[in-house]
Amino acid sequence: MQRSCLAIVLAAGESTRMRSSVSKVLHPIAGRPMIAHVMDSLAAAGVTDAVLVVGRDGAAVAKAAQRTDMRIETVEQTERLGTGHAVLAAADIIARGYDDLLVVFGDTPLVTPAPLKEALEAIAAGSDVATIGFESANPGGYGRLIVEGGELIAIREAKDASEAERAITFCNGGLMAVDGRKALDLLRRISNKNAKGEYYLTDLVELARAAGGRAVAVRATEEELGGCNTRAELAFLEQLWQARRRQALMLSGVSMVAPETVFLAFDTQIAPDVLIEPNVVFGPGVRIERDAVIHAFSHLEGAHVESGASVGPYARLRPGAHLAENAKVGNFCEIKQAEIGAGAKVSHLSYIGDAFVGAETNIGAGTITCNYDGVNKHVTRIGAHAFIGSNTALVAPVAVGDGALVASGSVITEDVAADAVAFGRARQEVKPGRAPILRARYQAMKAERQKK
Amino acid sequence: MQRSCLAIVLAAGESTRMRSSVSKVLHPIAGRPMIAHVMDSLAAAGVTDAVLVVGRDGAAVAKAAQRTDMRIETVEQTERLGTGHAVLAAADIIARGYDDLLVVFGDTPLVTPAPLKEALEAIAAGSDVATIGFESANPGGYGRLIVEGGELIAIREAKDASEAERAITFCNGGLMAVDGRKALDLLRRISNKNAKGEYYLTDLVELARAAGGRAVAVRATEEELGGCNTRAELAFLEQLWQARRRQALMLSGVSMVAPETVFLAFDTQIAPDVLIEPNVVFGPGVRIERDAVIHAFSHLEGAHVESGASVGPYARLRPGAHLAENAKVGNFCEIKQAEIGAGAKVSHLSYIGDAFVGAETNIGAGTITCNYDGVNKHVTRIGAHAFIGSNTALVAPVAVGDGALVASGSVITEDVAADAVAFGRARQEVKPGRAPILRARYQAMKAERQKK
Amino acid sequence: MQRSCLAIVLAAGESTRMRSSVSKVLHPIAGRPMIAHVMDSLAAAGVTDAVLVVGRDGAAVAKAAQRTDMRIETVEQTERLGTGHAVLAAADIIARGYDDLLVVFGDTPLVTPAPLKEALEAIAAGSDVATIGFESANPGGYGRLIVEGGELIAIREAKDASEAERAITFCNGGLMAVDGRKALDLLRRISNKNAKGEYYLTDLVELARAAGGRAVAVRATEEELGGCNTRAELAFLEQLWQARRRQALMLSGVSMVAPETVFLAFDTQIAPDVLIEPNVVFGPGVRIERDAVIHAFSHLEGAHVESGASVGPYARLRPGAHLAENAKVGNFCEIKQAEIGAGAKVSHLSYIGDAFVGAETNIGAGTITCNYDGVNKHVTRIGAHAFIGSNTALVAPVAVGDGALVASGSVITEDVAADAVAFGRARQEVKPGRAPILRARYQAMKAERQKK
Repeated sequence: MQRSCLAIVLAAGESTRMRSSVSKVLHPIAGRPMIAHVMDSLAAAGVTDAVLVVGRDGAAVAKAAQRTDMRIETVEQTERLGTGHAVLAAADIIARGYDDLLVVFGDTPLVTPAPLKEALEAIAAGSDVATIGFESANPGGYGRLIVEGGELIAIREAKDASEAERAITFCNGGLMAVDGRKALDLLRRISNKNAKGEYYLTDLVELARAAGGRAVAVRATEEELGGCNTRAELAFLEQLWQARRRQALMLSGVSMVAPETVFLAFDTQIAPDVLIEPNVVFGPGVRIERDAVIHAFSHLEGAHVESGASVGPYARLRPGAHLAENAKVGNFCEIKQAEIGAGAKVSHLSYIGDAFVGAETNIGAGTITCNYDGVNKHVTRIGAHAFIGSNTALVAPVAVGDGALVASGSVITEDVAADAVAFGRARQEVKPGRAPILRARYQAMKAERQKK
Repeated sequence: MQRSCLAIVLAAGESTRMRSSVSKVLHPIAGRPMIAHVMDSLAAAGVTDAVLVVGRDGAAVAKAAQRTDMRIETVEQTERLGTGHAVLAAADIIARGYDDLLVVFGDTPLVTPAPLKEALEAIAAGSDVATIGFESANPGGYGRLIVEGGELIAIREAKDASEAERAITFCNGGLMAVDGRKALDLLRRISNKNAKGEYYLTDLVELARAAGGRAVAVRATEEELGGCNTRAELAFLEQLWQARRRQALMLSGVSMVAPETVFLAFDTQIAPDVLIEPNVVFGPGVRIERDAVIHAFSHLEGAHVESGASVGPYARLRPGAHLAENAKVGNFCEIKQAEIGAGAKVSHLSYIGDAFVGAETNIGAGTITCNYDGVNKHVTRIGAHAFIGSNTALVAPVAVGDGALVASGSVITEDVAADAVAFGRARQEVKPGRAPILRARYQAMKAERQKK
Repeated sequence: MQRSCLAIVLAAGESTRMRSSVSKVLHPIAGRPMIAHVMDSLAAAGVTDAVLVVGRDGAAVAKAAQRTDMRIETVEQTERLGTGHAVLAAADIIARGYDDLLVVFGDTPLVTPAPLKEALEAIAAGSDVATIGFESANPGGYGRLIVEGGELIAIREAKDASEAERAITFCNGGLMAVDGRKALDLLRRISNKNAKGEYYLTDLVELARAAGGRAVAVRATEEELGGCNTRAELAFLEQLWQARRRQALMLSGVSMVAPETVFLAFDTQIAPDVLIEPNVVFGPGVRIERDAVIHAFSHLEGAHVESGASVGPYARLRPGAHLAENAKVGNFCEIKQAEIGAGAKVSHLSYIGDAFVGAETNIGAGTITCNYDGVNKHVTRIGAHAFIGSNTALVAPVAVGDGALVASGSVITEDVAADAVAFGRARQEVKPGRAPILRARYQAMKAERQKK
């Protein structure tokens, strides 16, 4: 039978050292609020019920944590009296009676499901408390996990540790699973008789043992338990997340010339045999299929790049950009809410927005779909095998048929039928010998200005 | 009473290993010559008088070091006979009689004021010599500072050190404060009877002690004493400078997704709650206000970005760019000497130079202010709530009034009144069925070419 | 007398962990297949004959390895039975009788000529086998080289090593020189009586010694012997290659503000006193001369940048771009197969392809050479001291003479004589007070749409 589990997500920190106008758990990692990463790991560990203990920005935090596969409630912690006190803000919900409690932090976005599951399994196997710890090469100020005969005897704060205890490298990560039937009783026994006058969740270990129960410690990596107190730490968590994800993609068959310069979003999908050149930034919602090449200095968001397509260098694909097979979008081009057909080319200095470009069509340099009249967005439809000359403005709503040719430098305001040729440019006039006269006039103007 | 202090800045190195056409102290860190950073730290340490000991490029070095809050003289070192000899190039100035001398190097741009002050305080407290040293994990070839009972007994060159002395990790950084009243006498006693036949400033320690005086050593970090002999070391100093400054900004409340890809200038000012995406380069003179977002691949120099404004991706702000609150400059846009009004948008592929754009005005994709006639620069003035259609050329000097509309693809050469609509584009012509004929002609041309 | 040497390049790996549709030795480092780097080092070590032992993609591997200064043959390894077996795939060629054999791997692209030469010299001096090893701080699972009295006694696999042997930090790199006269006989004595049933080349050491011969080990760096089994390792090799080359360039007098963001190709040539700003990508075939500046976010391939020229930020130079002295190509400009004359400027948002731009000519923002009609490429010729107004389309084939002026916003379809002024733009029309009416109409349209 499936055990019931309530996750308690502590997200009420003041975030003072973040010097931020919003709660730290709202700050993004890989383009998504930190707390959403935590919820992801909880869901992957099989948790279906969670309570967020929030302080500032409670509504925004609840919204960021929301997901369809989990029942999530929110309680407010009005005073900051320590982690033990924070968990008790959820006392009414705990009192419903869950088999397991799982206490995690809203600001450890790198935590993976593995140690969460392992801690829950320890409770299922009869422990009352299962703390999640990590091995550290520099344990310094961390609390030490004192384990004897497979049991966690105590969590010793660094400042209270003996020399022998300070030599221990197994440290307290703060996350903890607790027997849901005993949790409320144990939590209420935590005292604040200590230097800071706070209620420490870590006291549960000794309280559970004093009551004849069993505590254990499970292991996570140091990396995944990293918290976030400053924006420098936020950047470090981002770096760890990116390194982890880049490595996974490379091992799956994606080539990156300089992985440290490729920035992925939480949901970036890249198929094997895709090549990513240096300096590429992915926003959310991107999918790249096999054999596509993403050249240097490209920026993609909400885009779907099909097999064999070529993007960049310096291409920007915005939401709704869809490149069909072997399509090409080149330098200084922006594609927004537009379909670029198979084998079609938008190679230089173009803006293609709210548009359809047919297969094998060539869009000349400097082409602009004029999709906005200041109030409404309008659509441009270009057929297959068409040719749009350079420096052309297509004033939407407008359509250019299959195989049509638009002359360079045109302003196209009316539909162009298939196979037609369209011009929209002025006739050239030349004034022979006039340039020296104009230049003399400009020089005189300059001299005049300098006099002033 | 304020003590008088003369800083002697050694900047006469040949820079041979830099393989440079200019003196190494002119090479920039964070967009400013190395030596200017050193002068900054001297000023922050309270130094008001300095003498630069220069070799090649003396005039350029003097110019780079110049500042209004310090009296700076220059002397030339004509021969390279060691640091002791270099300092004596300033003998006439030293002879004026300062309380303190402070000898520093022009190529240690990361030195902070703290150890300089501490060394000067040691002189004020009665020491004759105060050397600035650093702890090194790899002391290798550095001279060791031998300290006993709080006094600096000697500076021992690595090659002359006993095994016990080589185990010392406190190393000589080369910078030194000296009692200004005794300095000339001590400096003149330095001998060149050594393997290289050079005069070493480090001899001052033993000379001062031999004369019954006291020498001490103060501590700086290894990082801040790093010198620059090659362009690889120059890049390393830049990296350290950038890391230091990024860290300070993040701790002050600036978010950086990937701080290692953000390049700051010496004077970059960024307010809290600003977000800097990956790959952003700051030239000198930039100020960013709260809640602005600088998107990826942006390049800013001499620009002022007000609160809530959005820059990039791929935006270039050049000197004189001023974005008012909530203004937006988007991809492949260049702004130079131009005011972009509150809430105004320049979103795509535009060049806006020597211009004023009013509040809430929308500048369409591919808009270009034609500000240059080959001789003079002219101004474009666009009012508030105006709409400039895409691919428009505004031929300055020209003005577009409040609320005016300019049609896409126009060339605007005359002023447009408020609320007027302006067109400047050719009428479209269409030749039905003509495209296949043209294509056939082009194919024939190709075939002709290939025959040749 | 010159000794004859046959290099045997093992390139038959399955590359399974690369998860690649092509053989791993075809994957590029610095823009060139891995195996081409190996061939380079062989050539630099004086090798003139080589045989590639290939598996999948044999023809492509042979093509990638090809070079004019070496006679290269290919043999196929049909079964994967170990390195000893792989070498014997070349038995017929070995049987021709070379003085020396040199066995290397196709996937160690960083190997330098030095250890290869040293191994060959050891054979010339009378050894039968010369293994190339490296010192490792983390020897872990590497085979250990057991050296006594200057001779290599054995190569001990980590799993078979005693504790004392595991303490050895001199590890087997796998590369090996063998006396060419004895090689076939020794190779044929390798047995596959081991756990994996494979033929190990490393057995040669003990076989040679058992036959009364001498084996030695020479030293390479750990870095240069790194192989490539995954795309993560490929990225790491790229990183090492880049770091090595950047360092060499900086020491030669090239300034890089942030060397870790500059990506070089295998053949990039940069003269001293060139400044490279952050985030610059070099494709193959680039040459930069003295005092040029490559600004941030630039991308160069097949380009020649002469002395004092300025590139970027955000400039893309494509093959055939040639910037003469002091020419300038600025932001969001693409130059392809085009000559930019001395002191000429292409500063903003332009595409210049298949073109000649004369000295001191100014190309305005948004200028586009319309070089393609959908079938053929045509040439644009612009003279010296000309001025092309902004947002101009030059419809090739077309020529603009020396000193000519083209008005902003023009479409130029016919040649413009020297000193002429050319216009090709529509006359401006203005409808006073019309904007509010248009806006009302657009608003009504929007309301209509929203109803639906």
